[in-house]
Amino acid sequence: MEKFDVHILGCGSALPTVRHLPTAQVLNLRDKLFMIDCAEGTQLQYRKMGLSFSRLGSIFISHLHGDHCFGLMGLISTFSLLGRNAPLHIYSPGDDLERLLRPQLDYFCREQTFPVVFHGFSPREAEVVYDDRTVRISTIPLKHRVACCGFLFSEKPKLPHIRRDMIDFLQIPLHAIGRIKGGEGWTDSNGRFWRHEELTLPAEPARRYAYCSDTMPVDSNAEMLKGVDVLFHEATFLSDAAARARQTGHSTAAQAAAFARRAEAKRLVIGHFSSRYTDDRLLLNEAAEIFPNVVLAYEGLKIEV
Amino acid sequence: MEKFDVHILGCGSALPTVRHLPTAQVLNLRDKLFMIDCAEGTQLQYRKMGLSFSRLGSIFISHLHGDHCFGLMGLISTFSLLGRNAPLHIYSPGDDLERLLRPQLDYFCREQTFPVVFHGFSPREAEVVYDDRTVRISTIPLKHRVACCGFLFSEKPKLPHIRRDMIDFLQIPLHAIGRIKGGEGWTDSNGRFWRHEELTLPAEPARRYAYCSDTMPVDSNAEMLKGVDVLFHEATFLSDAAARARQTGHSTAAQAAAFARRAEAKRLVIGHFSSRYTDDRLLLNEAAEIFPNVVLAYEGLKIEV
Repeated sequence: MEKFDVHILGCGSALPTVRHLPTAQVLNLRDKLFMIDCAEGTQLQYRKMGLSFSRLGSIFISHLHGDHCFGLMGLISTFSLLGRNAPLHIYSPGDDLERLLRPQLDYFCREQTFPVVFHGFSPREAEVVYDDRTVRISTIPLKHRVACCGFLFSEKPKLPHIRRDMIDFLQIPLHAIGRIKGGEGWTDSNGRFWRHEELTLPAEPARRYAYCSDTMPVDSNAEMLKGVDVLFHEATFLSDAAARARQTGHSTAAQAAAFARRAEAKRLVIGHFSSRYTDDRLLLNEAAEIFPNVVLAYEGLKIEV
Repeated sequence: MEKFDVHILGCGSALPTVRHLPTAQVLNLRDKLFMIDCAEGTQLQYRKMGLSFSRLGSIFISHLHGDHCFGLMGLISTFSLLGRNAPLHIYSPGDDLERLLRPQLDYFCREQTFPVVFHGFSPREAEVVYDDRTVRISTIPLKHRVACCGFLFSEKPKLPHIRRDMIDFLQIPLHAIGRIKGGEGWTDSNGRFWRHEELTLPAEPARRYAYCSDTMPVDSNAEMLKGVDVLFHEATFLSDAAARARQTGHSTAAQAAAFARRAEAKRLVIGHFSSRYTDDRLLLNEAAEIFPNVVLAYEGLKIEV
């Protein structure tokens, strides 16, 4: 299976604790890295986890609260000090982020060696914000105190595997293999036609990862995420603080689990834990009663999608 | 002795390493806290070291490079979330810092519960920027790539200690003690005059702490810092990188030590280590050859001045 890993760099909420760092994640898709949110301290945690700076090309910011973006300036400065050449693309809702960061970039990174390209998107409806040979990334409209979107990473459908034994048996030349992978069959030297399905094994199914934070549960997103392989959903509070969750635009662990069930997610990872909880297992237990295939995020966790 | 402690929160230089955090220090002067520089991650390190947020009233920024100020936004946001009431005073060279931070403060801390008061100072000559009953804080003009100042914390002269045995022996009433501490003598019931010096023991000498980072060595500052109790001086490089030090406006460990000797400092602490060194003892050894009473800064170090 080709690499599709999610690294959790931080999974606490806004108030700093000694147990969690604020939000940041890195996806490794076939050795191309994508960052989701970039809280204060992200660049250090990135280093500690041994991730490659040079393979990171794009950062996706869910919303403009400090605990999701205060690490950008430090990260960009470091890239500058390291003499990075490649552009860095930053995606965020609306166009406020560029307006807020540009004066600091101009001031602190005067000798900047690479362009920072800001891409705004509308937070109101799902849209494709990134698309390459490997992956399509769409926004997931969320419901928080400010404009906020999650992100759905959908691996592109893969080509089937060629059956080595059939290639050898039929002595199919190398130049024909691309066409067969692409869907064609093969007529052998005796004039017999072999169907595509006889020459190949099906590709692994394309995988999907969804990131939903910060948000109240949004039932209408379940359809879009139906059957997602891994769902990260915030679970800031326990159910006994449901009123507080509603008031601050967050979810309880039970709500995160109910959403995972509704979306028929294969696995659920919960995070963005409030600083009030010293034992995250309380959140895990609450979620597991509703959706058993759930794990707690923690700093350093690697999830293979 | 009343408290006069320096806590090292970070003593690396701009490029992040897994060994050091970038620059931040906290002074505890009789339980009033002062911060010097505030790099990314400072608030978390502050928490880890068990320092009190509510006792911090003033932050002194040496210069506007990211590795000395990128932690301000996160720290201020956290104060806001915690419902801080007391004003926070931030001192920095010139007036750029307010211009750069104000738009972000207005955006990210909309519900701010306390005022942030910016105080600019001229980086060209030493001036008193803070003065209260306990301490006077002066700038130390430094020589870096951008406007940069160190800070000299001078404890106010203390009142002498009253001699308990003499008070009891002469039955001096409580109301007279303040005047005696202030310098007066006492005439006893037999009409004998006791001199101030007979009734008191001298106060501990007032102490001084000097912070010099980032900078090339500035000989002309030695006079101002003559006999300072503890001198923190940056030592970014070893002498074999003296050209690089000059080019980037930094000091070598040998230069830091030579400056400490010239200023007749009682103790030297070196820090702001380049990420190129994996063994800081190389820097220590180089400094110690010139100024033996030197220690390496490290995260978590507490220096009693």
